Amino acid sequence: MSRISRREFVKSTSTVAVGAAILPVGLLRGSLKSERVRIGVIGTGLRGQWHIQLALRRRDVEISAICDIDEGMIGMALKVYQEAGRKKPAIYRKGPEDYLNMVEREDLDGIIIATPWEWHAPMALAAMEAGMHVGVEVPAALTVEDCWNLVDTSERTGKFCMILENVCYRRDVMAVLNMVRKRLFGELLHCQCGYQHDLRHVKFNDGKQPYGGGVEFGEKGFSEARWRTNHSVNRNGDLYPTHGAGPVSTMLDINRGNRFVHLTSTATQTRGLHKYIVDQAGEDHPNAGIKFKLGDVVTTVIKCAGGQTVVVSHDTNSPRPYSLNFRVQGTKGLWMVDNDSIYMEGISPEEHRWEPAAPYLEKYDHPLWKRFEGQAAGAGHGGMDFFIVRAFLESVRRDAPPPIDVYDAVSMSVISPLSEQSIASGSSSVKFPDFTRGKWETNGPIFALADDI
Amino acid sequence: MSRISRREFVKSTSTVAVGAAILPVGLLRGSLKSERVRIGVIGTGLRGQWHIQLALRRRDVEISAICDIDEGMIGMALKVYQEAGRKKPAIYRKGPEDYLNMVEREDLDGIIIATPWEWHAPMALAAMEAGMHVGVEVPAALTVEDCWNLVDTSERTGKFCMILENVCYRRDVMAVLNMVRKRLFGELLHCQCGYQHDLRHVKFNDGKQPYGGGVEFGEKGFSEARWRTNHSVNRNGDLYPTHGAGPVSTMLDINRGNRFVHLTSTATQTRGLHKYIVDQAGEDHPNAGIKFKLGDVVTTVIKCAGGQTVVVSHDTNSPRPYSLNFRVQGTKGLWMVDNDSIYMEGISPEEHRWEPAAPYLEKYDHPLWKRFEGQAAGAGHGGMDFFIVRAFLESVRRDAPPPIDVYDAVSMSVISPLSEQSIASGSSSVKFPDFTRGKWETNGPIFALADDI
Repeated sequence: MSRISRREFVKSTSTVAVGAAILPVGLLRGSLKSERVRIGVIGTGLRGQWHIQLALRRRDVEISAICDIDEGMIGMALKVYQEAGRKKPAIYRKGPEDYLNMVEREDLDGIIIATPWEWHAPMALAAMEAGMHVGVEVPAALTVEDCWNLVDTSERTGKFCMILENVCYRRDVMAVLNMVRKRLFGELLHCQCGYQHDLRHVKFNDGKQPYGGGVEFGEKGFSEARWRTNHSVNRNGDLYPTHGAGPVSTMLDINRGNRFVHLTSTATQTRGLHKYIVDQAGEDHPNAGIKFKLGDVVTTVIKCAGGQTVVVSHDTNSPRPYSLNFRVQGTKGLWMVDNDSIYMEGISPEEHRWEPAAPYLEKYDHPLWKRFEGQAAGAGHGGMDFFIVRAFLESVRRDAPPPIDVYDAVSMSVISPLSEQSIASGSSSVKFPDFTRGKWETNGPIFALADDI
Repeated sequence: MSRISRREFVKSTSTVAVGAAILPVGLLRGSLKSERVRIGVIGTGLRGQWHIQLALRRRDVEISAICDIDEGMIGMALKVYQEAGRKKPAIYRKGPEDYLNMVEREDLDGIIIATPWEWHAPMALAAMEAGMHVGVEVPAALTVEDCWNLVDTSERTGKFCMILENVCYRRDVMAVLNMVRKRLFGELLHCQCGYQHDLRHVKFNDGKQPYGGGVEFGEKGFSEARWRTNHSVNRNGDLYPTHGAGPVSTMLDINRGNRFVHLTSTATQTRGLHKYIVDQAGEDHPNAGIKFKLGDVVTTVIKCAGGQTVVVSHDTNSPRPYSLNFRVQGTKGLWMVDNDSIYMEGISPEEHRWEPAAPYLEKYDHPLWKRFEGQAAGAGHGGMDFFIVRAFLESVRRDAPPPIDVYDAVSMSVISPLSEQSIASGSSSVKFPDFTRGKWETNGPIFALADDI
């Protein structure tokens, strides 16, 4: 595969003004380089299986290798191949380091990583070193050091590291992005977002089904409960910031004219997970003795170079309706997701009164959604999974920079370790590293500029 | 007037458990000491006139002295007396220090202060020194030093300093307080609140009417624009935290088993006020050259001794619907005002789904509201002004501690200077002084424990 160089690309896009109008298809992207892309998938749990299923819908994509340590999950993934009528892949299943053999031996254009969080960065690094582009599930890394490793390795190898932050493609979020770029909110001032999702039935199950039915986790848990819950035992911070910070980053032009400068995080006391165990299984259950470190609600406030502020909530241990907490506010008006409302000065019929967001979201439906609505229907999470997988595959196929790149991957993922640091030091203000090394000042936006990717 | 001592009172209430059931009328209060209370009002602007009108409804209250420097406002206040068919008061109008003559010469039981913010603390201090109880408009003080002065003076003189934070008495807020005390939300974890109110038409007017019609302020402005706007020119912080922090303080038992420990504040860029001037009056208007210091949205996060967190928003320079941003969340469920919804684990009919708050707010309507609904109707701000004025007058009449005391006044007011300090130092974490000097650990709740005050 030949390819246009990343640096040339960055240079060519850097002249695009922030908030520029939507550009015609293909202007910013390389031309198509390959008729068939060869992909490997590391991590064939429920999320990985879903990626496989979406990718195998395309005849121009071959997933020729998969890797996992769980034979049950491998078996489920192979069923996806069978149902899709596709050739069985090479399987790497010999222990937690076998992915290294996969990226060394296989001839692949790109790797999708859908493993437990702690494996994301080492696997992404190994894949890039082996000459493969990376699509990594969220978060891309858990430490500041690994964020830098991802950036350095991507820059040195010329391989991209795209974070598979699907909420960037949520339909309402993209309509609002469209409105932001048309300056309908004026100059942006303040955004809110977060991950407010009662995950107690995800963090605990009966070891047989993925959701609920028991209070087991770790060795005795199944699916995410096997590994995800341990982060709640051992860490206090915003463990899962990207579903909120990703979409907001595209609106605020983070890494492209703007950047996150500092944050503070503050956590509540820790009650929900222990209470759930006791409520479900009684005080005598061995897990009732576990001390969880994660505060039930973690609030992070980010300051941007452009002056804007972002509130990111993390709230996964308590009974509550699901909400990503979006609010996007500028000098002319604001959108808020929790009441499905918009207010626009001079446009909304009554002063100081909300009006329903739906007509705006329809009117400003993003060109990408208009074009792919039919194909996205039925793909996971309201269709947004279709777009994120497609964007990754198209970027690999064209050997072109992805619409969400390594700088985005790390600037949204680094919120976790920085928030842990802030909480551990009494909510002190913690600075973001500038992972672009100054290039944020001249880089132009890359996400969803047209109806392409 | 004789009275029970503050300390005896504090001691006697300190044994009441946090979250205790509502107690019968009169159990916690002193018996009635006087048939007629003599009140003075400093500041007869629109707010002061309103207090006068409410107080003069009562035949057992006499407002025998008023003080202002604005003859127009004095004239409007006198009309209120006339309409109420009440005897004209003594008037102190000889310059900004004439209130000192008033508190020295007049024989008053209590003073209501409804002047520009910067005068609240000095006037409250002078009134207490002169042996009068104080009801002071929000905020009670603008500096940490003046917060301490209020505490020290109240303790030394035995005179109370009640902050007239009316939102503590808002009907939905009190119903939720009732639910909190019945432990319906479980153990509280997280609250949100704030002052989100497009004040551009308050900060600017034509010098003749209080709301809008021009872009004048300071000397050329009328009513609040005369003095309030200058705080936006000179200060960057949460200028007006008490409408949110007051109600939340009653729910979190602040100063009574709990306290605010530290905060961080982060402000956006400053755009709205300048934009308003230019939009309304053009770039050539002299006020278009004013540099405002106040960030358009200020987000403050407070950590409590009990572990809980409170997000306080301040958002007064931008077009937006009014909202005090309330959210009250515990281990069993939460209330959110912006979507008028509640979710209660095991009670709400559908898991993970909001239900309307209204039936809960009705069911748990606070006894005070049930008792005084008829009288509160027509009083300002949805009736809550009736309660705050009544609570002050009843406390004066009985010479008994008020339901919102000097510790509450300063713990909610001090958010302003602490937030300014945090913003000025890059969102550093700033500690709250313990104004109770340790008594918060043993003090019991005092606010709205029954259907009395």
